[in-house]
Amino acid sequence: MKDKKSLSNRRAFIKTTGKLSAGAMTTGLFAGGLFTGSPALAREPEKKLGVALVGLGNLSTKQIAPALQKTAHCRLAGIVSGTPEKRKKWASQYDLPESSIYDYESFDKIADNDDIDIVYIVLPNSMHAEYTIRAAKAGKHVFCEKPMATSSEDCRKMINACRDAQRKLGIGYRCQFEPHHLECMKFAAEKNFGPLRHITAGFGFKIGNPKQWRLNKELAGGGPLMDVGVYALQACRYLAGGEPESISAIEIKTDPVKFAEVEETLNWSMQIGDVSCSCQTSYAYNGINQFHAYGTKGHFGLAPAFSYKGIKGTSSSGPIKFPQVDHFQMELDDFAQCVKNDSPTRVPGEEGLRDMLVLEAIYESAATGKTITPAAFQ
Amino acid sequence: MKDKKSLSNRRAFIKTTGKLSAGAMTTGLFAGGLFTGSPALAREPEKKLGVALVGLGNLSTKQIAPALQKTAHCRLAGIVSGTPEKRKKWASQYDLPESSIYDYESFDKIADNDDIDIVYIVLPNSMHAEYTIRAAKAGKHVFCEKPMATSSEDCRKMINACRDAQRKLGIGYRCQFEPHHLECMKFAAEKNFGPLRHITAGFGFKIGNPKQWRLNKELAGGGPLMDVGVYALQACRYLAGGEPESISAIEIKTDPVKFAEVEETLNWSMQIGDVSCSCQTSYAYNGINQFHAYGTKGHFGLAPAFSYKGIKGTSSSGPIKFPQVDHFQMELDDFAQCVKNDSPTRVPGEEGLRDMLVLEAIYESAATGKTITPAAFQ
Repeated sequence: MKDKKSLSNRRAFIKTTGKLSAGAMTTGLFAGGLFTGSPALAREPEKKLGVALVGLGNLSTKQIAPALQKTAHCRLAGIVSGTPEKRKKWASQYDLPESSIYDYESFDKIADNDDIDIVYIVLPNSMHAEYTIRAAKAGKHVFCEKPMATSSEDCRKMINACRDAQRKLGIGYRCQFEPHHLECMKFAAEKNFGPLRHITAGFGFKIGNPKQWRLNKELAGGGPLMDVGVYALQACRYLAGGEPESISAIEIKTDPVKFAEVEETLNWSMQIGDVSCSCQTSYAYNGINQFHAYGTKGHFGLAPAFSYKGIKGTSSSGPIKFPQVDHFQMELDDFAQCVKNDSPTRVPGEEGLRDMLVLEAIYESAATGKTITPAAFQ
Repeated sequence: MKDKKSLSNRRAFIKTTGKLSAGAMTTGLFAGGLFTGSPALAREPEKKLGVALVGLGNLSTKQIAPALQKTAHCRLAGIVSGTPEKRKKWASQYDLPESSIYDYESFDKIADNDDIDIVYIVLPNSMHAEYTIRAAKAGKHVFCEKPMATSSEDCRKMINACRDAQRKLGIGYRCQFEPHHLECMKFAAEKNFGPLRHITAGFGFKIGNPKQWRLNKELAGGGPLMDVGVYALQACRYLAGGEPESISAIEIKTDPVKFAEVEETLNWSMQIGDVSCSCQTSYAYNGINQFHAYGTKGHFGLAPAFSYKGIKGTSSSGPIKFPQVDHFQMELDDFAQCVKNDSPTRVPGEEGLRDMLVLEAIYESAATGKTITPAAFQ
């Protein structure tokens, strides 16, 4: 990476001034706009960081690779896949040099590839930790799909690995870059509808193929909670602006064959400060894809809230309307700018860890039938 | 009551044929239409039963008395109030004879009033039991507002009193007579959207005057759960078609002064058979007034669901549209017909008791932090 030295200098400066502290993250979050960069960096707008995608499934194929054709600050520069046919197809489709194409065995050689700045992990959940750590050790910045991992223990290892390598770690919380969500965060932070008192949030879908990795505990770590429930949790956390003080969950299973390894449906409630949260996730039914937040003076929400496209907002003061954007384009351009500017991402590994600690508490509450008061979320 | 003897005969007949069993209730529920009466009764369509309202607060003034001007099978025939000015005003407004106007001391003399067939209890919750029992002892059929009482113990006493007096007892679950709700019950029962897997249901509002009886535990028995949360519970029960097997709740209080005696906000989850339910109730925020049910093949719901007017329905197959009706007119005409025909009401005391047992379990779960598996709901 060409500007490694200058980035290091900036990092040292930012560390000194404390701008990399966890608390600083929220500033960027609620500012609503993209980081505009320092005057020094404005001189090199043409530089696009190279991104290597690890795992070429549906998400990479249909969302992320197309988004990387539109990004201003990064570009698709490499791929990692275990399937020769996929490697060949992608190399041809995206005109990728042979030197930037890896399989899982050769992956660590990416350390020698100056054309790759960021590795984007799009693998099944349980593989996130290993490949994040290997990418960090190879000297790459890492962007990792949600859920960050399958345990808080793995999340901590990932954070440590990136910290040790002095590389950035971002989590694919694309909604934090979507304008309707950003507007709702603003409503919450600025108390436009009064201080919040309640959030209902749910995301689920009826799962198809019973043989997919999402139903395999070893690969997925869990069921819909890990996969899509985390969006509802994210919404509650970034709207309520804090961490849960109590968590209560129940699990419902109607098909113990299909859901032999992971949960089918979970409902959970949380208290976050003065906000009661009521959340739902499931692989058993379609149509739940929303949040609605209720303040003392009005209410607002999105439905659909978490789809890749077609986000719609309503409020007690009228519709919430913004242009539809490519969420992946937004998150990737933001992360690339954070790397370029050595500024903190609003979706760091610590954010993924905080969610994972709540996910673990939700599972614990469902398993024990007891309300959980998490000892600590750090 | 003029036809007491013939009703007794019919009751004896119906008892013999088992039509008064609890199970029969659901037949009427899902039939969707009003009971058309036996040929014998078709001869006396002009007879309107006399209804006495006990408690002349907002609900009686703004909803029930106007509804009783429209009912085909009953009419406002008497009042019971502790306020002389109200008695005078109502007597004049509704042309009520002096002989049908009572205060709480003289109330029991209603036994001698042949012009009153049904007593409708519209008092603060904790007074429901006493006045239901006194009305039954006075030989009157009783219709009682929700929540039925403030404890399952009181519910059982009310049921017993009406049974002992051979009088009918109905609970003011007006939504069970509203066409959008009836259509949703039909969707659920007939599995038009596949078997149900989830229901989200919530009802609450931001409460005003801190001195009202709703915030007084002795009068109200509880807070929003008792008052409006019971609508969400009702929706879950009549859509899922069964009783909860597990209940988990959390309570949130942000204003311990205003809510010194009753809860401010409750979220609870329930499992009813194969259906997960996620419910919300509160006195802290406006705008939550809906249910949405998710089946394996689609979803449907109402929002607003529980208002007196303006019910709106949506589904994955399009809008749910029915004429707006006066809920109180519908429930009262139905109950009057049940009395006339000695047919079972779809909202008997047993239905109120079942809800009360769940409400008690919700409070217990919130207080203990434990998922409750109710031992029995009968």
